[in-house]
Amino acid sequence: MAGMNKIIECVPNFSEGRNPQNIEKIVAPFRGKKGVKLLDYQTDEDHNRMVVTVVGEPDDLKTAVIEAMGCAIEVIDMNTHQGQHPRMGATDVVPFIPIRNVSMEEAIAFSIQVAKEAAQQYSLPIYLYEKSAGRPARQNLANIRKGQFEGMAEKIKKPEWKPDLGPEKIHPTAGVTAIGARMPLVAYNVNLDSDNIEIANDIAKKIRHISGGLRYCKGIGIELKDRDLVQVSMNLTDYTQTALYRAFELIKIEARRYGVNIIGSEIVGLVPMEALMDTAAYYLGLEDFSMEQVLESRIWE
Amino acid sequence: MAGMNKIIECVPNFSEGRNPQNIEKIVAPFRGKKGVKLLDYQTDEDHNRMVVTVVGEPDDLKTAVIEAMGCAIEVIDMNTHQGQHPRMGATDVVPFIPIRNVSMEEAIAFSIQVAKEAAQQYSLPIYLYEKSAGRPARQNLANIRKGQFEGMAEKIKKPEWKPDLGPEKIHPTAGVTAIGARMPLVAYNVNLDSDNIEIANDIAKKIRHISGGLRYCKGIGIELKDRDLVQVSMNLTDYTQTALYRAFELIKIEARRYGVNIIGSEIVGLVPMEALMDTAAYYLGLEDFSMEQVLESRIWE
Repeated sequence: MAGMNKIIECVPNFSEGRNPQNIEKIVAPFRGKKGVKLLDYQTDEDHNRMVVTVVGEPDDLKTAVIEAMGCAIEVIDMNTHQGQHPRMGATDVVPFIPIRNVSMEEAIAFSIQVAKEAAQQYSLPIYLYEKSAGRPARQNLANIRKGQFEGMAEKIKKPEWKPDLGPEKIHPTAGVTAIGARMPLVAYNVNLDSDNIEIANDIAKKIRHISGGLRYCKGIGIELKDRDLVQVSMNLTDYTQTALYRAFELIKIEARRYGVNIIGSEIVGLVPMEALMDTAAYYLGLEDFSMEQVLESRIWE
Repeated sequence: MAGMNKIIECVPNFSEGRNPQNIEKIVAPFRGKKGVKLLDYQTDEDHNRMVVTVVGEPDDLKTAVIEAMGCAIEVIDMNTHQGQHPRMGATDVVPFIPIRNVSMEEAIAFSIQVAKEAAQQYSLPIYLYEKSAGRPARQNLANIRKGQFEGMAEKIKKPEWKPDLGPEKIHPTAGVTAIGARMPLVAYNVNLDSDNIEIANDIAKKIRHISGGLRYCKGIGIELKDRDLVQVSMNLTDYTQTALYRAFELIKIEARRYGVNIIGSEIVGLVPMEALMDTAAYYLGLEDFSMEQVLESRIWE
């Protein structure tokens, strides 16, 4: 990944989590390609779904993603697909995330270009979602996916659900796909010194956006039965606007009302370096700190 | 710098900070070389000295450093060198710092190999210092350099100052050089809400190693006259053992005795990513956090 100037991350979700041959066929286009690096892929048999994490230079990433979408169309038939996770297409959703030297505007333009080419190449109807959405109702994936594959043949005929790209009918075996740009998502959980799920739920309500809390925070209470405690489990959907430390400190403040302490917290999966640098800078009161001062970012720039 | 498996940093100090042609000759071996990246070089006319910061794969870095040492020997005559900074050789000191996939043991072995080759190639006496030192008295560069270039011709004849490598007499124009491995150094300053330099000095005494404080912390009080405040200015010589947040919190605790608050802090120059990740992990109470979870470190691994 040397000399990578612009880097975009892609986390496509495919509706195949059981058949090893099919899984390998879908992942193959991300392997050993110039300018593309496969970071991870996780399959879930119950969900019958696979989540791939890949980074790359825009042009190379586009080629690989479109190729993988073609493989998914080849091996998946949504008419026989079963799984617990909501889904509407063989390639269910393709989010693009700007990582390095790429603005959100560029990532949006890039996602639309990928959507155009994929729609044309595979006669696939595509909805643009998140930051790429043309209509507010399409920002939220759950709105688009409501009714799932089985309901899409009818839903797509409604004027308000005309696809942004591709034919105005579902692909007979591959359904529909959502493509869009979004910020990196940080899965961040704060553990409470309590086994009372109601406290975790109450705090989650106070700090999450939907019920009056932080703008880029989704949250629920969760029981960790093996540890005999509860946690506030969050998705921070834009850490540059809703900082990790702000969510953490706010939970600490809310927990006081219940006489409950914070035990610790955890980051699930990957986190951009900047999210934790910002946290360190806050607590140390760092003046004039720049990401350029991080040795590794100088080495790899 | 793709596919760089092992990375070592080198911060050689050369006794030339005035003549632009000479400076360029010494820096040239670090430019445009495979497996080597020149991050920075700073010259100081008063000190008549240059500090280069370069990273690279061990083999390529070794070649470049030895070549630069040869250039320094060619263009510098210590018999006519003047400058405020203590110095003993054309290439004064060459520290190697393990950065990625390199243990301290490997960095020590590497530094000794560079010293061997340079000593032989240039008939240059070399002292091994810091972690590479064979004798405790040679761990500290100040001990080795005491007497400076002018005193070295005599000093080197003493049995306790027999060089570790090379001839038992100074190089007639290039003097002697110290080479060794050390941890990355973090220059970290904490600003106090006070203009009383005695308070900063008192706190520095309490937190620095030499007078009873933290093992890998050097510190002094400094006046920032333009800002009308004082700071505790530190060098943290091993952030993996003496964490940034520990120095910060300890200064905060000591400042209470004087009724003084911390205004903020600053990192001067480069800092390894891990030093700030560790800080974030401390304040958020992160459980089971691994550097592998940092997106960028996965991209560049």
